[in-house]
Amino acid sequence: MNHGAGGKAMHTLIQQLFMTAFNNPILAQQNDQACFNVPINRLAMTTDSYVISPIFFPGGNIGSLAVHGTINDLAMSGAIPLYLSVGFILEEGYPLANLKIIVDAMAKAANQANVQIITGDTKVVEKGKGDGVFINTTGIGIIDDHIKLTNQVNPGDKIIVSGYIGDHGIAVMSKRENLQFTTAIESDSAALHELTHHMFEVVPDIHCLRDPTRGGLAATLNEWAKQYQVGISIDESLIPIRAPVKGACELLGIDPLYVANEGKLVVICSADKAEILLKAMQQHPLAQDAAMIGEVIEDPDCFVQMQTSFGGTRIVDWLAGEQLPRIC
Amino acid sequence: MNHGAGGKAMHTLIQQLFMTAFNNPILAQQNDQACFNVPINRLAMTTDSYVISPIFFPGGNIGSLAVHGTINDLAMSGAIPLYLSVGFILEEGYPLANLKIIVDAMAKAANQANVQIITGDTKVVEKGKGDGVFINTTGIGIIDDHIKLTNQVNPGDKIIVSGYIGDHGIAVMSKRENLQFTTAIESDSAALHELTHHMFEVVPDIHCLRDPTRGGLAATLNEWAKQYQVGISIDESLIPIRAPVKGACELLGIDPLYVANEGKLVVICSADKAEILLKAMQQHPLAQDAAMIGEVIEDPDCFVQMQTSFGGTRIVDWLAGEQLPRIC
Repeated sequence: MNHGAGGKAMHTLIQQLFMTAFNNPILAQQNDQACFNVPINRLAMTTDSYVISPIFFPGGNIGSLAVHGTINDLAMSGAIPLYLSVGFILEEGYPLANLKIIVDAMAKAANQANVQIITGDTKVVEKGKGDGVFINTTGIGIIDDHIKLTNQVNPGDKIIVSGYIGDHGIAVMSKRENLQFTTAIESDSAALHELTHHMFEVVPDIHCLRDPTRGGLAATLNEWAKQYQVGISIDESLIPIRAPVKGACELLGIDPLYVANEGKLVVICSADKAEILLKAMQQHPLAQDAAMIGEVIEDPDCFVQMQTSFGGTRIVDWLAGEQLPRIC
Repeated sequence: MNHGAGGKAMHTLIQQLFMTAFNNPILAQQNDQACFNVPINRLAMTTDSYVISPIFFPGGNIGSLAVHGTINDLAMSGAIPLYLSVGFILEEGYPLANLKIIVDAMAKAANQANVQIITGDTKVVEKGKGDGVFINTTGIGIIDDHIKLTNQVNPGDKIIVSGYIGDHGIAVMSKRENLQFTTAIESDSAALHELTHHMFEVVPDIHCLRDPTRGGLAATLNEWAKQYQVGISIDESLIPIRAPVKGACELLGIDPLYVANEGKLVVICSADKAEILLKAMQQHPLAQDAAMIGEVIEDPDCFVQMQTSFGGTRIVDWLAGEQLPRIC
């Protein structure tokens, strides 16, 4: 408990662990806030708390996820992510050695993405009042003038997904349920801002952009359909899903369309630019398997419908909850 | 659990509770990030997670505290707070009626302080893996050119506290321990940015400014002494402490210097401007009881020392932990 109490023990934790791992001049101001200049006045801000269980999973841990996830929410606005804040809520007795692995993963993910963690906070709660580690990251980024994300959609617009879906959720679920598969399934957790930067270079007036995390592809498409009062039609045979993920989903009785992703995005763009955008995406390492999976249609009921592999059509419903809790 | 699962239940919660309470055009973008322009390029950013127990206490609740606390961390840099993000971690089964009271308190506190809550996130964890509600707020503000906070101190500089200390911690502790006092003690939780704005108008080159929250006045003074490699000398008889707070501290066996405040600040300024600053502060409703309590001295040991009311001198040590956990 002393590590969260505002005294010498907390000071030592901050100095030895956080200041060393996240080392940068703005953090080194050592005040309760970070001060800095931004080169562009148009900003994006986003926040996410991460409560994933288990904390360590194939392909990452809560720390790398907390950096990637918040970077991605910034990237989806066309922003270049600049700075992150981090807030830890630790359960009393959580091993400092594990915390160090998490913090190092955050530092590595931030360095790789060229973002800086500039301010932070640590709270400790009693045993049984938390669950190891919860992390909040909040990010800000700048949006360059050439970004013309419209956030408007029209019937006929095309829908592209950047690669295989369901990897993150199934990787976490496998670890949680202690399932063994012949082929290892790893989380796709990755920072997508370089991919989005590349996409906006090619098509500045992308219509919509979102990363299908909690609730998966199905939730993202349903949110859009409802928000823009349109229908969406997708084709099951065009949606990239790895065979082991498909197998695991069958085993677990869950639908991959609802499974969280942490390194994928979905984009809507006008029909005349869809092929150009798709080709550009496929040239990027994080979207080699991008695929055009459907289009926006007129529909007063705002349904998401899918042509199934068997030739029929089904509604991809918006679930009340989710099959997989605490996936991020 | 469904309220945190990314599906329809979460959407409904967001629409009916958060969007209504925090209503503003930036939040209404309804994306995973908020986009906006800032009028000034010099920014401050701060983050805090709030895990206070109990969630409701005399003078406020976790919601108002989460708004005030983060506004204050911005204000201590001379920033005008503009925008907040909010991240909720809810324990499964926490009553929605209570959440509504908390959210309404946040909205009211934000409105009063003229800041907007522009982006948010909600996670739900299983019963026994959290403790009702944890809230992270992260804030950004702009720092006007006329703010010349030096963040440097010199021996001879004066130290001013903006009013009675210990109210917040003792109010929370009384509620937690179910103590009854003849005089009700309420938290001092308040947004201090208008007070700091007023202070910088009068003395633009304030040397240091901080709000003594966790660890109280003693932690703030010790942090400064260590950070700037100086000693600090204060006079016990000059420190404003309400009689009931003093009494409660004696009863509980704790030292008011270490008790958290949420509506007070401590400031260091040059000796020649101290009287002017003190007078200006006393004209503001939130610092009517401001007092000059001591000064910066040369001391290679970087001790905080106090002239006691009995005429002696004692070291105000930097505690390893704190007497009062989960006070904010």
